This record gives sequence, C-alpha cells and structure tokens, in this order.
Amino acid sequence: MPDYKAPVRDIQFTLYDVLEAEQHYQRIGAEEASRDLVEAIITEGGKFAEEVLAPLNQVGDKVGCKFEDGVVTTPPGFKEAYTQYVAGGWPSLAGDPAFGGQGLPESLSVVFDEMISTANWSWEMYPGLSHGAKLTLAAYGSDQQKQIYLSKLTSGKWTGTMCLTESHCGTDLGLLKTRASPQADGSYHIEGTKIFISAGDHDMAQNIVHIVLARLPDAPGGTKGISLFIVPKLHATTLESNNVLCGSIEHKMGIHGNATCVLNFDKAQGFLIGPPNEGLRCMFTFMNFARLGTALQGMAAAEQSYQGALSYARDRLAMRALPGPKFPEQPADPIIVHPDVRRMLLTQRSIAEGGRALIYFCALQADIVRASNSSEEERQEAEGLMNILTPIAKAFLTETGYEAANLGVQVFGGHGYIAEWGMEQIVRDTRISMLYEGTTGIQSLDLLGRKVLADRGKMLRYWTRVIHRFCRDNENRKLREFIRPLRRHYREWGGFTRKIGLKAMRNREEVGAASVDYLMYSGYVTLAYFWAKIADAAYRAIDAGAEDKTYYQGKIKTARFYYKKILPRAKYHKEVMMSGAKSLMDIDVEEF
Amino acid sequence: MPDYKAPVRDIQFTLYDVLEAEQHYQRIGAEEASRDLVEAIITEGGKFAEEVLAPLNQVGDKVGCKFEDGVVTTPPGFKEAYTQYVAGGWPSLAGDPAFGGQGLPESLSVVFDEMISTANWSWEMYPGLSHGAKLTLAAYGSDQQKQIYLSKLTSGKWTGTMCLTESHCGTDLGLLKTRASPQADGSYHIEGTKIFISAGDHDMAQNIVHIVLARLPDAPGGTKGISLFIVPKLHATTLESNNVLCGSIEHKMGIHGNATCVLNFDKAQGFLIGPPNEGLRCMFTFMNFARLGTALQGMAAAEQSYQGALSYARDRLAMRALPGPKFPEQPADPIIVHPDVRRMLLTQRSIAEGGRALIYFCALQADIVRASNSSEEERQEAEGLMNILTPIAKAFLTETGYEAANLGVQVFGGHGYIAEWGMEQIVRDTRISMLYEGTTGIQSLDLLGRKVLADRGKMLRYWTRVIHRFCRDNENRKLREFIRPLRRHYREWGGFTRKIGLKAMRNREEVGAASVDYLMYSGYVTLAYFWAKIADAAYRAIDAGAEDKTYYQGKIKTARFYYKKILPRAKYHKEVMMSGAKSLMDIDVEEF
Repeated sequence: MPDYKAPVRDIQFTLYDVLEAEQHYQRIGAEEASRDLVEAIITEGGKFAEEVLAPLNQVGDKVGCKFEDGVVTTPPGFKEAYTQYVAGGWPSLAGDPAFGGQGLPESLSVVFDEMISTANWSWEMYPGLSHGAKLTLAAYGSDQQKQIYLSKLTSGKWTGTMCLTESHCGTDLGLLKTRASPQADGSYHIEGTKIFISAGDHDMAQNIVHIVLARLPDAPGGTKGISLFIVPKLHATTLESNNVLCGSIEHKMGIHGNATCVLNFDKAQGFLIGPPNEGLRCMFTFMNFARLGTALQGMAAAEQSYQGALSYARDRLAMRALPGPKFPEQPADPIIVHPDVRRMLLTQRSIAEGGRALIYFCALQADIVRASNSSEEERQEAEGLMNILTPIAKAFLTETGYEAANLGVQVFGGHGYIAEWGMEQIVRDTRISMLYEGTTGIQSLDLLGRKVLADRGKMLRYWTRVIHRFCRDNENRKLREFIRPLRRHYREWGGFTRKIGLKAMRNREEVGAASVDYLMYSGYVTLAYFWAKIADAAYRAIDAGAEDKTYYQGKIKTARFYYKKILPRAKYHKEVMMSGAKSLMDIDVEEF
Repeated sequence: MPDYKAPVRDIQFTLYDVLEAEQHYQRIGAEEASRDLVEAIITEGGKFAEEVLAPLNQVGDKVGCKFEDGVVTTPPGFKEAYTQYVAGGWPSLAGDPAFGGQGLPESLSVVFDEMISTANWSWEMYPGLSHGAKLTLAAYGSDQQKQIYLSKLTSGKWTGTMCLTESHCGTDLGLLKTRASPQADGSYHIEGTKIFISAGDHDMAQNIVHIVLARLPDAPGGTKGISLFIVPKLHATTLESNNVLCGSIEHKMGIHGNATCVLNFDKAQGFLIGPPNEGLRCMFTFMNFARLGTALQGMAAAEQSYQGALSYARDRLAMRALPGPKFPEQPADPIIVHPDVRRMLLTQRSIAEGGRALIYFCALQADIVRASNSSEEERQEAEGLMNILTPIAKAFLTETGYEAANLGVQVFGGHGYIAEWGMEQIVRDTRISMLYEGTTGIQSLDLLGRKVLADRGKMLRYWTRVIHRFCRDNENRKLREFIRPLRRHYREWGGFTRKIGLKAMRNREEVGAASVDYLMYSGYVTLAYFWAKIADAAYRAIDAGAEDKTYYQGKIKTARFYYKKILPRAKYHKEVMMSGAKSLMDIDVEEF
C-alpha cells in the first residue's frame, strides 16, 4: 500500500492562500475557527489518518466484512479505530452545541474528512453515512427526536444510514415499495427490503439509526408519495431488537471494508420525520452534502494514487531519458524523467489539488448558508453556487479521480496490477463513486436539466460571475496566460447553454444527449478557474518573499500543465454535445 | 455473469463483407479455407466458447488458481476444458503440417481466438501463451528442436510460455540478470528468477516449454547481450524435473484464473535458440503477434460488456423518456430509451465492432506475409501495415476496451459494482491489457519513435494510402458523410507528423511528450476508416437486396454515431500533442 502522508501544507495553502479562509471565518462570525485551532485539527486529524486509519486500509480490503448468522463483523482493527475516533471527539466537530456538538464551521469537518477519506475510504463511510442521518434530523426532527437520536449521532455513540434503494429501483425512487402503516401510538410499522445500504450493519457502535424512505397508506404513486422515517436498529430506550435484520452483505468490486447490506424491515417501529409524502424533497435538501462527500472520494483517490505513483516514479529505474542519461551513475534513469510518466503524474496532481480547491470552496459556501449573520442575498448566492457546483464536483471529480487512480496503476507498470502494492485497490474502491449518490448520468441531468435550464441559467450565472470577476481583476498581471483561455471558456459556456436550451424546447431528448458532455465541460472549466486561483496564490506568496519558492513554482507549473494538456478536453466535449441527439436517437431498439 | 453469445453473424460480416476474405484466401492460395470450412470453425468454435468456456469464467475469478507445496492448481473445470480443446484439434489449426498442424491461414486462428478470448480470457491465456513459444520455435528452432517441442505444442499436449520480466525490469529488458552457462554437452545451465510469467505453471498439460531470455557469459551489457533459450519444465524425454520451480503466484486485480508465476531457474537445462546475443531481436519478430493477442483482449472486453449491458438496458426499467413515456403500459421505460444510456452502449459497440475489423485486417496481413505465393512487394506492404497497426491496435483497443468495460458497469448502475453480475470482473480482467506486452506508453514510443519517425513515415504512408484509396473510390457515393471527415483526418495526420519530426530533431523529449496522444489520434482515425468500410459493406448489402435491412441499418447508424460522438476526440489529442514538451519538462523533480 502506498504510505499516506496527510498533505498538511497543501491543505493549509488551499484553505488560507487560495480561498482566504481567515477572512471567511471572520466574515461568518466563526471566531473559534482560529488559525491555531485549524492547524491543530489538520495536524491531529492528519496523525489519526496516517497512524490509525491508513494501516487498516489494505487489511480492510483483504479480509473485508464478514456475515455469519445474521451478524456483520468489520475487518480487524476497524472497531478499535472507531473507538479512538469517538474518544478524540471527532464526530462532534461541526455538530450543534445544543446536542453536544462543538459548533465549528462545516468546512472544517470537510477538511478533516478529506484526510480520513484518503487514508481509508471504506472506514470513513461508517461515520460518513452518519452525517447524512445527522443532517436529516437536524433539519426535520422534532426536539424530542433530536434529543434521542441526534445527540447520540453527534457523540458518535450511534451511527446512522440512509435507506433509499430497493432491488428494482435506485435511480428511479418513484418505484419504491416499502410500506409504513400507522400504529395507535403514533409510530409506524415499516415493512420492506432495502438493498445497497452502506454501513447498514456493523459491530462498531452500540446502535444504528436508519433514515428510511417508505410509502404511507394511500400515498400517491411515484415520487410524490414517499415519506421519511427514523427506524433504529435497536429500540432507543431498551436497546432491544426493532426487527431490522441484515439479510446478507454484497460481494463487491471494492470497498470490502464497508458492509453493503440487504436490510429487511419486518414491522420495524419507525417514526415519521418531516411532512408526509415530502420525503424526497426533504432528502434533497441535504443531498448536496452527501454528493460532496462522494466528490471527496474522487479527489481522495487522485491524492492517494498520486502519492504512491510519485514515490514509485522517483525510485523505479527504467530506460534512459530520450536526449541521453540524466543519472549516468545509475544503471538506468528513474522513470520520472520520462515525459509520459510526467503527463500521468501531473494529471493526477491537477485533479487532486484542483479538486481540493473546488471541494473546499463548496464547503465554505455551506458555512455561509448556515451562518446566522449571512444576509439573505449572501445566503442565496452561496446556495446557488452549491447547487450548481455540487453535481459538477460529484460527477467530474469521481470520473477524473477514477482516471487518476488508473494512471497510478499505469505508472507502476505490471506491479500496479498486483494486490500488495495497493494501487489496484484504489481503482476498485473508487469505481463505485461514479455510481452511488446518483450516477454520472443522473448528476448530468441534474446539472443541465434542473440546475441550469429549469432555472434559466440564474445559478450558472452566479458561478460564471465569480469567474468573470476574477478574470477582470487579474487581466493585466502575470496571470494573463491563464486568464485568456479561462475567459474564452466561461463566455462560450453561457453561449452554448442558450443554444442547447433552444434545441431542448423543440426536442427534450437534446438535454439527455448533451448532459454528460455538458457536465464534463463544466468540470474542466471549473477546475481551470481553481488552477488560475492556485497560480495567483502562488505568485502572491513569491512576491511576498516566501522562502520556499520551489513549492510555489510547482503550483504555477502544474497550472500551466493543466491549461496545456487537460483543459483542451473541454473543446471535445463541446463539439460532441453540440452534435446533438440525432445520432443517438435515430437508431431503433432492434438495430442495436 | 452476462451470457456470452458468439457473434457469428458479425464475425462473418466482418470477414466476408467488410474485409472480402473470400478473395483474400483465393489470392494467398489457401483453397482449403473455403466458406464452408470457415463457417464450421466459427460455429463449432462458438459452441465451444459458449458452452464450455463461458460457464467457467466466473468460477475462474472466484476460486482462482491455488498454489500449495510448490504446485499450481487451476480453477475447477479448466483442465477438463483444456482436454476438450486438445481433443477438438483446436491447437493445431494454423500450425505447420510438417509438425502436425492443419496449415490453415493464421487469420482463422485469430477468429477462433476472438471467441474463446471473449468467453474466458483467463483460460485463453494458457493456449495463447503457447502460441508465442510456437512462433519462436517455428522461426528459430533447429529441425530437431521443432521435432521435439513444436510438435508437442502444436498438438496441445504441452503448453509454452515467454519468460522475459525480472523483478527489477519489465520494460527495460536491458537490465536483466538471468545467466546461461555453457555445458560440455552443448546445453546451458540457466540461473535466475523470472516474475509475472503468465501460465507459468499449471496442471492442464503434461509439460511446459519456457522460452527464456538470459545472458551468456561475457555477453555485452544492455539489450545487445541477451539470448533466447528453450527451457522445458520437465526434461523432454524422461519427463523428470528440470529444476524450473514455481516460487509463488501473484495476487492480482483480475485474471485470477490464470497463474502469474514467479519462476526460479536453478541450473535448469536450456538450449540456445537463434543466434547468441540476438534474443531480443528474435523476440521482436513475433512480438506483433503477442501484441495483437492483447489487442484482442481489449476488443473482447468491449464485446462481452456490450452484450451484458445491451441485454440489461432492454430489461431494466427506470424513469421515463424525457419527451414522455415510450412504454406507458409498464411502470417505467426500459433504460435503453435514454440518450445517455445509448451513448454508452454505442460507444461499447463501436469499439467492439470497429476493433474486430481492425484486428482481422491485421490478421489478414499476417496471412499475406506468410503465404508462399506473395510477391516481395506484397509481403513488404503487409509487413509494413502490420508494423504500423500493431501498436495502435494493442494500445488503442486496450485503452478503449477498458473504457467500454467501465461503461458496461455504468449501464448496470449500482448492480454493476456487485460481483455476481459479472460486469466488474470484465473491468478487473481487462485492466492488465494496458500493462503487459508493453504498456500504452511503450506502444506509443514504438509507434511514433520507431515505426513512424525512424522510418521517415514510410510505414505510415502504407496505411494512409489504404485510406486514401478508399476515400478516392467512394467520394461520390452515399458514403460522403464519412469520406469527408476521414480525408480531413488522414491528411492532417501526415501533416502534423512532419511537424513533430522537425520538433524532435531539436529536442528528443518532444517524441515522448507527444507519443500517447499521437497513438490515440492514430487509433481514432484508424477506427474511423474501418467504420466507413463497415458502412460501405452495409450499403452494398442493402443495395444487393438483403432481406434483413435492420441488421445493416444498425451498422450504418453506428458508423454515424462513431463519426459524431467519438471521432472528435482526435482533435483533442492533436491539440495536446502539438502543445509540446515544455509544460511537462519544465517542472523540476523537486517541484512535484
């Protein structure tokens, strides 16, 4: 397994130099998020990730979860690591102080989450899924429900899950069949079978709080008849069984350390949360968060595989540089001298570091939405930015993160295919990120159909305005090499969006035909913005007389690489999306 | 596991309608390759692939090879299938009649190989590796060596391997250390350890013939001091141990059914084959064949995952078509109605079917090279075409075949990630194809550096001339929609090749910096040629009054899809390769 080293300096650079978090925390009135405290979180969190979680990543894959006699056992060490995590107070970082939380900004839990995600994604999913349950309870729970469940989730004593999928429906939740029958005491009997429930059962915590989508009697069909229920694994007070039984766990391509469960709800007691029949809408209010978590998985895969590939490329000797030996005293040159190995490394790096900036930016918007001192206008803009950027971050960073993980294998040559090196595990673990929390196709429809076209481009303009301001303020500086192509791209982005909108008015298939290319285009341009921001921050540090110029020059040169070698992909996606639906829809089902 | 159905009709269409194999076999004087015989091979071979091999594909993955007490055991059923394969006479199909072969054209063994490769790649590798050993013996063995070893390999009684890689070198064989010490009887003692030896040990055949790269005493360093040896696992006459011991087998991402062995040669008796110190050159004479076999793996992955995804997309119900329900009587539409699902299916299909045409075309060139009645000019052209097309087929079809396998998972959504459906196995099995037999990076250097630039574009012109003639002969017909972009691309291909050549004269790094994009560009344009040929064949069939117009229209429409949605990628690769080496090489090692 490649060693994981928490990229402490990169995290600080992104947060403070690129995204100016110091001003941000002041603006939202989070005085407690001082530079010292943030540094302590990064350092201590990084240690926990490096020393406790990373060493369990490979055993988690190899041993995996076991299912015997209805009981799920997590891989050796997972439970003990969870105990340490709880003892360290990590679950309550950004929680509501009224229920035992530390009340820090959400963005800091994202920073911590990056490190544990990169060190051990399968493990991270247990607390990660709890977060979804927490947000649901915080938004829609009654005070009593919060007292009972939210406080236990905040302390980490219990974990949580989200139970959506059934065997015949994942994407199309309108088809779901799980039923909720009202009981005399105001609770409900939940009956049905859910599949693909991540962290659905395990031995790491005392109890599990399931948030379950189900239908009330006489609920309308489709998505408008779905309600949300709290269904604990064990009754909250007695800790006796509540008839939520794990039927089996899946054998999967990767994330073997996380139990993906079939859960049978056999008249389990459930409690309605949120208004009846509005469960799907309630879910979607925090879907952004879950999707940002998955975006993190893509970015984490890029970071982890970059760390592994870079260290291998420095050590492994093969062939000579084409113009002649660069290390003549060695029997061959280290492969990092070869241009194509550099292409692979820099691709990984540009996704990892650019992706970090994108994800942190989204997390800062979440802070603004939540901050009590934000104006309505600020909140609206922050929410608009999150809405437009979330599907981009989720789909684009998982697609490119998967590419980066595959490049990591490629840098290792044949050794990359061998389990012990750990590079192929990253590929297997990451493959799911393009599937769950809405596939790439679904994210793309969400972006183009719902966020851009249905909103008549308003949210998109929030984002292009950010890019526009940056371009305007920096056009006469060293950044010109980035500003010019960036401006060209964000301008044409608006332009062809209008064209697709017009085409879609005549033929709705045009939306589905253009959507994935539209999303990828958006991703490449969005990352181009962040790479220009990174270069800007690096130039500013050098101008301010930073000692370690090497560090900052590396950032500027990676930005250049991104603009020369990666951004041109946007053009391809543009051409393909503009070529329309005809070549896809003309072919009859029988002609396949 | 998706069912495998041998695509009998597509194979015949490609062979006879697209590539005019009937005339081809006449021209090379292979009268025995009659249409009836070929049909029998396809039908019977297809049955063997469908009924014997496909059912073993998933168990091969799940159980894998076992290594205990120095003995390798293949998965249940593998050995029995091999016995059937030998009994059916399949190993001798294209073998030399002087040593028990049936003397059929090589291209027919490729056709058969496609089917068994797609049904069960891990199994196919056992006979597949034998083929490399056979070709070495046929080209460089003495009559006695052929009598002893080649006849046994031809009957299939023994299998063979190629032993190149050592732990410190795979790509850079100049570093290899295995030694060969001459003995009084004219044989050699081979000492050293080889790794990553596919099919290196197993229980399927009586004996294994290893072709081993090693150094003679006082051999020059580097690649010019490597010789080739025959080293049987058991002595050929006594069948007693020859001190070739399997030390372990690797735990890999995929192809679990094939034993990837560490082989220890402990003074094993070996026999020199070919001239001393010219082992690498000898190897390269049939490297084209091994690489074409790996290209087949990419194409096979596309075919197999397309078959699985297509059948799932017809059955699985989710959401409604955006313009409104297409199957209102069902609770939701089958997902094949959605444009983005079609994009994925057609991408897979265009790689599988276009790839088949490319690989068969290469195989026909191999026939011409081998045919006794070919003129020197014909032979030279065929060899030139093979030389230029082999790295393209190997790297481009494995990269895009891997993409297709991943799209297969994507069409299945979350179910694609679950082992029992078999779609994720295709991804894991195929991942190695971009690594072994020379990585994508190595193929690209071979193409641009050795085949194109060092040859001053002569081989490339063989190929663009084929495209040119096709364009010239078809410009006034229905094919115009394909001919125009095809002509534009092959013309610019020559143009920027010259530019890169000029840049490379000033800076050799430009070759490495451009190579992978150059290869991918070449691949997209090459496949565009074959899709135009496919459309041409389909139009001709329709014009000739074919009954099943649906079949042929499907081909024409897939060609259109390819030109609209896939070929534009070439433009991206062109832009990136022309952007040069600077952004890759400017960054210092410390700046990573």
